Amino acid sequence: MVGPTSYFDPARTGELDPRTADLVRRRDAALGPAYRLFYREPLEFVRGSGAHLFTADGEDYLDAYNNVPCVGHAHPRVVAAIAEQAARLNTHTRYLSEPTVAYAERLLATMPASIGHVMFTCTGSEANDLALRIARAATGGTGVLVTEYAYHGVTSEVAAFSPSLVGPDAVAPWVRMIPSPRPGIDFAEGVRAGLASLEADGLTPAALVVDTIFASDGCYPDVPGFADAVAAVRSAGGIFVADEVQPGFGRLGDGMWGFARHGLEPDLVTMGKPMGNGHPVAGLAGRPEHIAAFAEQSRYFNTFGGNTVSIAAAQAVLDVIQDEGLIDNAHRVGARLRDAIAGFGSERVAEVRGAGLFIGVDLVDADGHPDEPFTLDVVNALRERRVLLAASGPDNASLKIRPPLVFDDADADRLLEQLSAVLRNPRARL
Amino acid sequence: MVGPTSYFDPARTGELDPRTADLVRRRDAALGPAYRLFYREPLEFVRGSGAHLFTADGEDYLDAYNNVPCVGHAHPRVVAAIAEQAARLNTHTRYLSEPTVAYAERLLATMPASIGHVMFTCTGSEANDLALRIARAATGGTGVLVTEYAYHGVTSEVAAFSPSLVGPDAVAPWVRMIPSPRPGIDFAEGVRAGLASLEADGLTPAALVVDTIFASDGCYPDVPGFADAVAAVRSAGGIFVADEVQPGFGRLGDGMWGFARHGLEPDLVTMGKPMGNGHPVAGLAGRPEHIAAFAEQSRYFNTFGGNTVSIAAAQAVLDVIQDEGLIDNAHRVGARLRDAIAGFGSERVAEVRGAGLFIGVDLVDADGHPDEPFTLDVVNALRERRVLLAASGPDNASLKIRPPLVFDDADADRLLEQLSAVLRNPRARL
Repeated sequence: MVGPTSYFDPARTGELDPRTADLVRRRDAALGPAYRLFYREPLEFVRGSGAHLFTADGEDYLDAYNNVPCVGHAHPRVVAAIAEQAARLNTHTRYLSEPTVAYAERLLATMPASIGHVMFTCTGSEANDLALRIARAATGGTGVLVTEYAYHGVTSEVAAFSPSLVGPDAVAPWVRMIPSPRPGIDFAEGVRAGLASLEADGLTPAALVVDTIFASDGCYPDVPGFADAVAAVRSAGGIFVADEVQPGFGRLGDGMWGFARHGLEPDLVTMGKPMGNGHPVAGLAGRPEHIAAFAEQSRYFNTFGGNTVSIAAAQAVLDVIQDEGLIDNAHRVGARLRDAIAGFGSERVAEVRGAGLFIGVDLVDADGHPDEPFTLDVVNALRERRVLLAASGPDNASLKIRPPLVFDDADADRLLEQLSAVLRNPRARL
Repeated sequence: MVGPTSYFDPARTGELDPRTADLVRRRDAALGPAYRLFYREPLEFVRGSGAHLFTADGEDYLDAYNNVPCVGHAHPRVVAAIAEQAARLNTHTRYLSEPTVAYAERLLATMPASIGHVMFTCTGSEANDLALRIARAATGGTGVLVTEYAYHGVTSEVAAFSPSLVGPDAVAPWVRMIPSPRPGIDFAEGVRAGLASLEADGLTPAALVVDTIFASDGCYPDVPGFADAVAAVRSAGGIFVADEVQPGFGRLGDGMWGFARHGLEPDLVTMGKPMGNGHPVAGLAGRPEHIAAFAEQSRYFNTFGGNTVSIAAAQAVLDVIQDEGLIDNAHRVGARLRDAIAGFGSERVAEVRGAGLFIGVDLVDADGHPDEPFTLDVVNALRERRVLLAASGPDNASLKIRPPLVFDDADADRLLEQLSAVLRNPRARL
């Protein structure tokens, strides 16, 4: 089991203030040991607005971490869309609903022409799971290629190709792990080796599944050999699934989808987290011939997937992204953050990567080695300074900066001021 | 692929009114061929209230089918809870949230004392998928026993133990199918045979997974040998998963959960559909030692699962079930419906089964054989008379009556009047 960020240690519950300690104990008792809390001192919020979260005491935390509320916490247009539709009707896709069709059409208009159908789920995990079923039906293959620190979700089969969740030894026998696209790595070479390994074991590939910002590998916006890798998979009979659950919906500041930045046309596109600004809606889009092959094996119905309220939420999110110019904002503020952090001149910052408002910052020790303890200190010191972000990457020594897309210049100023101070001395108390 | 109900045939799109035909064509183009629509003439609703759905023309349809909006379509208390919480904060389980803990505690108070933890998902499919992961971690086994027409969900692994979705030939090699508990069948005998078959193939059982109302097998409220079956599975090292996605939350008119009607204590309880009255929230509850075994293998995080808005919806649903006495209502109105339908004295009605507001009505031809064409005619004739229900069961020759729990005496009168007329002559136009 891999720990990608700084979780609370339940053994330290007694060190918390009495009210928090009591709530943590009740939570542990009710939800059990598989759940985690962020930070050395867990946080409890009661209200959100824009890129800000508030405690019951009215303390204002800057949210530089949460990618789900992409148009900002509790955005009034999304809230109104949900409230109005919930008051009218919440029903499923076995009745006709014009708004559901109209939303699917709008989504398809953002995709390459080869992508013809949309299918709705409730979570990104379900979307990636359905993508696997479609890929297997379309190709007849079973093998799946992912990056070595990939995370794609929590269903049985998706967890089995998520080494960052279950650990590299617990992935399924039909999975091959490809080296993360670090500098000096040719991604296509890793994929070709994975394909050869499948073939050596008598397996044929169903899909290469890639998060197009390589979030859990440490955030890699530019990947030499990516197009060749996709071509190799297709030559071997597999398809390319672009997992847009994290990079999608404009986060990378350059159009709606991460795959387009790499100049790629995927076969299946999965999406989730920001799609409903926190309302559970997700889905996939794919080539008609692949979905037809799946439909020959099984009809598809997801009770809550594509329900009228989820669609209202998703439609409002697209409206806000467009009307508030959030893709341009992600591009501009993201570039400003990256330039400023690189410009700190800190010897603890080895590299600043990213695109739009998905930023990875590698932190190192005095010898230039990835420094996990330092990174966790930085994350927790920023929490004390009321700035939320996380540790990530293979060594758990990269800061992950991934705020709501409404993150503005004042928010950026606040993040940069606090991060700069903390990088100088993360153990200094306020 | 099995077709459990009366779906629209896309080849007949040209026979629909022009506006509907156009929407069906747009829908087929956008969503693709894996989706289905109910009825020979699809329906489009724009508003719902109580047990009623309304078209754009204001036509009032009686909903005797939809189990998801259990406290009634667009119940104002649930709508208000969603709207108020969405306007305040929608965030996830890695921050503390007292209401999330309080809801889990409230749910656990409805369960046997041996059930100690709750985990949140967004769909029943995810809940059953997580149950499989937990069962395998807790037992070390892989085998799953289900009924021969079982449906448990749409993820890769759950579809693989859902013969009514994928067909009996496409279930996974680690699945054994048990005969449906029809009269004369000893359920335990089937389970023991399934266990022996697993053992003969060198497999050990992880779980017996049973929908406690046997919905897709045709609705069986009383099952001889059920307790012995559970004991046999436990003796062989497996656990018992009660799938309460359909029967749970009071539908059966006798307490909250279907397993209790059988006098059973399950190891895991999965839940979904009615939990948020249409808001996508689902989950499971289980024994601490089993969840601890899972937690040793993997942490658990479901981005939208147990978010603050989903919890507000779920809490409001429990409030309404309690405050409006809906379990008693399900008991009383359900019994009235069953007695009245049996009392029709129709020679086309072979049997009326059920508990609370989950009712199966077997329809037969003049020779007493299951009559699918007649059943589909009845379902579509009722649709013309603005009453919604479905065909179900192994032969697709059972009516499935499964309305919102707010179904009242006037609703029952209307259903009985129309059903009585249609059973006499389903092909007569209004």
